[in-house]
Amino acid sequence: MQHRLKQQLGFLLEIDRLKEVMRQSYICRGLRKENSSEHSWHLAVMAIVLAEHAGEPVDIMRVVKMALVHDLVEIDAGDTFCYDDAGNADKADREAVAAERIFGLLPDDQGREFRSLWEEFEARATSEARFAAALDRLMPLMHNYYSRGKTWQEHGVPAAKVLDRNRHIEDGSPQLWALAKSLIEDAIEKGWLKK
Amino acid sequence: MQHRLKQQLGFLLEIDRLKEVMRQSYICRGLRKENSSEHSWHLAVMAIVLAEHAGEPVDIMRVVKMALVHDLVEIDAGDTFCYDDAGNADKADREAVAAERIFGLLPDDQGREFRSLWEEFEARATSEARFAAALDRLMPLMHNYYSRGKTWQEHGVPAAKVLDRNRHIEDGSPQLWALAKSLIEDAIEKGWLKK
Repeated sequence: MQHRLKQQLGFLLEIDRLKEVMRQSYICRGLRKENSSEHSWHLAVMAIVLAEHAGEPVDIMRVVKMALVHDLVEIDAGDTFCYDDAGNADKADREAVAAERIFGLLPDDQGREFRSLWEEFEARATSEARFAAALDRLMPLMHNYYSRGKTWQEHGVPAAKVLDRNRHIEDGSPQLWALAKSLIEDAIEKGWLKK
Repeated sequence: MQHRLKQQLGFLLEIDRLKEVMRQSYICRGLRKENSSEHSWHLAVMAIVLAEHAGEPVDIMRVVKMALVHDLVEIDAGDTFCYDDAGNADKADREAVAAERIFGLLPDDQGREFRSLWEEFEARATSEARFAAALDRLMPLMHNYYSRGKTWQEHGVPAAKVLDRNRHIEDGSPQLWALAKSLIEDAIEKGWLKK
């Protein structure tokens, strides 16, 4: 088998392990927590369906690609819960080492493309990254809302922190931020999220 | 909330249930079977990584979209194991009813686009559909090979049937079909797949 195809298959087999990285979000019916590969799929479909709500013009293929690869580093670095302050302090360092190894499995040109998509997503400096990052925050917020605040309550996350961590949804989509705020306010009113 | 956004969110919440549709394939480390949302994510990444091996020119965004939505009908119709002859006999009817309901949750224009992507995938009449369908067969074959034939053995699937069901990989990619055949031959030689 040619070397290039062998590298590609090696990468595809390795990323199967994203199916074993568990997140703090519950699937909508609240039966179990979801893993990062399921989340990445859901996010990619969400990007296609909600594309028209992006705050700025976006190349939707690049948003979808970001959604598909944005969590691959978690295979080595693990999922960092967005309300975990300690975990978030060294997240960047842990993930940079992971990116080096995981994207390094691909042929050079593809490894560089995937790594740069991931870095772009993390930096939120382009319209595509801002929109992808907004969706990446809106989705768990929806999961939380529709499971009556299950994850918020499990971790005792207060409303102020939820507002703070999700505020950058506005940078990707003012319209979806309005939606997010109404879900948060309603969750407070219903007693699913503490003031 | 505007009606259109409400429909879009309703669809996104409903498709969360794809995470509960179990397939016959094991994840690579053989720990458990995978579900259809994980598979759809893996397939979409695979399409991007292996795009250069498509047998004909393809619009890769359409291949990725097909990968992301091709199994949504399973939310109602369930996953039909590709070696289950009885299940495959009425698969088309069950899935058509499912498509009507699930894609019908979206705003009309988006529902039509998603349904037509799914129909295109099933018909394998375009280069994109042939390539997407080839990947959709190659991936479980790889899972089977790297779990030493676990699913083949569980269901007593013989080599002739594996060859027959996977032969259309060649229509999407002669190069990946050569790879698939070499995996099948090696699996026979290693005793993981019965002649």
